[in-house]
Amino acid sequence: MNSEIVVIPQGSVTSARGFVAGAVRAGIRQGLEKLDLGILYSEEPCAAVGVLTGNRVKAAPILVCQKHLADGRAQAIVANSGCANACTGEEGLREAHEMAELTAAKLDIQPEDVLVASTGVIGSCLPMARIRAGIGDIVLSSKGGDDLALAIMTTDTVPKQIAVRFDCQGRRYTVGGVAKGAGMIHPDLATMLCFLTTDAPVRGDFLDAALRQAVDASFNMITVDGDTSTNDMVAVLASGLAGGEPLDAEHPAAEPFCEALTQVCTYLAKAICRDGEGATKLIEVRVEGAASKADARRAARGVAGSLLVKTAVYGEDINWGRILAALGGSGADMAEDKATLYLSDICLYRQGRALEHDERVARAALAGTEVELRLDLGLGDGAATAWGCDITEEYVRLNSAYTT
Amino acid sequence: MNSEIVVIPQGSVTSARGFVAGAVRAGIRQGLEKLDLGILYSEEPCAAVGVLTGNRVKAAPILVCQKHLADGRAQAIVANSGCANACTGEEGLREAHEMAELTAAKLDIQPEDVLVASTGVIGSCLPMARIRAGIGDIVLSSKGGDDLALAIMTTDTVPKQIAVRFDCQGRRYTVGGVAKGAGMIHPDLATMLCFLTTDAPVRGDFLDAALRQAVDASFNMITVDGDTSTNDMVAVLASGLAGGEPLDAEHPAAEPFCEALTQVCTYLAKAICRDGEGATKLIEVRVEGAASKADARRAARGVAGSLLVKTAVYGEDINWGRILAALGGSGADMAEDKATLYLSDICLYRQGRALEHDERVARAALAGTEVELRLDLGLGDGAATAWGCDITEEYVRLNSAYTT
Repeated sequence: MNSEIVVIPQGSVTSARGFVAGAVRAGIRQGLEKLDLGILYSEEPCAAVGVLTGNRVKAAPILVCQKHLADGRAQAIVANSGCANACTGEEGLREAHEMAELTAAKLDIQPEDVLVASTGVIGSCLPMARIRAGIGDIVLSSKGGDDLALAIMTTDTVPKQIAVRFDCQGRRYTVGGVAKGAGMIHPDLATMLCFLTTDAPVRGDFLDAALRQAVDASFNMITVDGDTSTNDMVAVLASGLAGGEPLDAEHPAAEPFCEALTQVCTYLAKAICRDGEGATKLIEVRVEGAASKADARRAARGVAGSLLVKTAVYGEDINWGRILAALGGSGADMAEDKATLYLSDICLYRQGRALEHDERVARAALAGTEVELRLDLGLGDGAATAWGCDITEEYVRLNSAYTT
Repeated sequence: MNSEIVVIPQGSVTSARGFVAGAVRAGIRQGLEKLDLGILYSEEPCAAVGVLTGNRVKAAPILVCQKHLADGRAQAIVANSGCANACTGEEGLREAHEMAELTAAKLDIQPEDVLVASTGVIGSCLPMARIRAGIGDIVLSSKGGDDLALAIMTTDTVPKQIAVRFDCQGRRYTVGGVAKGAGMIHPDLATMLCFLTTDAPVRGDFLDAALRQAVDASFNMITVDGDTSTNDMVAVLASGLAGGEPLDAEHPAAEPFCEALTQVCTYLAKAICRDGEGATKLIEVRVEGAASKADARRAARGVAGSLLVKTAVYGEDINWGRILAALGGSGADMAEDKATLYLSDICLYRQGRALEHDERVARAALAGTEVELRLDLGLGDGAATAWGCDITEEYVRLNSAYTT
């Protein structure tokens, strides 16, 4: 295989051929001195698929995306921060549609080819006058990925973007992505947004399968606080400008493409955890030896999502009992006398017995900004990795602030 | 019906006829200046059933209880705080059995009729010399319920006990209970223990059904931090000293007995939430109009368990969007345009629309130590109530403290 996946320096969602982006400060939330409205546009119509929130309460832009993704095509995404346009009824739905229409008119495409994403306060309607003016003011360019990354941020402290490329049979393919995370906009709900782009030509059903596989291994394996947003959305647009036959499961580029997509999603998912509200540490939980893949996923997510594990890691506390208890409570099949627990390379517990370890070495493994836990359940060959972050006083402080 | 349920002033686990208890400070955890080892004893052999932790990692005392409850009989419970005797392998199991044997020898009963409960640090073995001496020193009396309530406390700030009585066809029945909560012993896992007593004579299968029903409506509807302990246990002992025919589903006292048991469990469950680590408020979530009972339970627990709802309540923040989002993410069937949300008696959201409300009145409803949320899903007649507590900086502080 010559299809090594290479990270593109300063890569962004506009690294793939055919994509431009831009953003403005529309002033959606008063007093917020940041870019808050952006557009991602592909010069060519794209195959497009999305994974939308599983929450039964779906924000208006999610309902619009469901409709506009039905034909598997899209050419632009318009996104704002500062207002989630959720729980806003008919009025909110009209406004989300208008955002798509305004963007379509600006770009001379069909409104049905525009996806809409919003993040911010639930229950307020959009300031449409500012949105209308803002969409008019956006200037699109191939350098615009950086601005889009800033425009979708809420309490994220850093923009989150990446692009990778690989070559296959003389052709170069690029996959880029941008995300905003489980930072919670003051004062409301964490929303995860992720827009992915590729210049690979990809058949719709294969693109859908590739995206679901990538999301399952990345965004579905992270946990900041266990709440699911009304606005969560991951969408991928494939412009086809890399040329050649459209990718399907039999295509020689299928495997590296899936790998590249998963790598981009995993990078962004970890970036979201690392930048979780108030977080000081990324926690990686690798589970091996589970009875099944499903059990491995359950176990990894159970440990990464445990509030007691998260607070112990925050305190740099070698509290392996909490890790075993979270594992036991995860629903995954396990047996105490078969499980083994490592903190980095330090074995803390092996098959029913706590192991002696050098306290200073163990503390050092907890002292950094990344903490690595590995659990071998000793039952089968199911494996999975989940990521979380620690929970701190700052998380509570940020999320208990008044709305007004 | 003359079977009104009456709360007994200063009632405890020894209020029901035939039960005595006592506790000592055995010094299980060095530096802990409190009672830490206790015994509950019934003068008569009892019908006994229990609900034990669903965690796959089961502490040694849980394994002993499984065995000793197999015949549906028990006569005593020995319980300690300061050490959970969990993840302690064969040695821990031997020690849990020895606790039962020592208690049986003291009381001149069979070890198989003794239940064992431990709460505290995971992964450490019991200081058996101190346990042996302590069990010898315990003095049992009908006033001993108070001491037992203190002995099982860990980071609980108040003891939790209650007793109720009701009359039926000229006979008086008493149900008492003691619990310790989801305070977490420094530095380890929250364990919930609850011992229930009654002088009613009760058939084993009916006692089991009554307990499961009571636990489902109470302890299974509370959430402090979403973690399940390795040592959780609810057990009920029925001495029969009230006399008369043993209760079964057809007995005239069956219904008030179930009500009394549920009332005792609900009181203790709420007391546990109220005293959650670092908590300042009890949150009650009542769901009505759900498509089914199961959906109502899911919805109520989903809202009460949401970290975002918990932090918003802590901040006295009227953040109804988070409540709807938690509802939507709970897995319960719901529709935005059919759901209605009340904070106390203030309607915040009705069938798709936020309602205007007096900000000061709403803030006042959040300012007390009990916050009441009511959700009508408008779909059917499923109803359920769940309880939680707010999450505060103090929770994080307590749970991030070093082990050493």
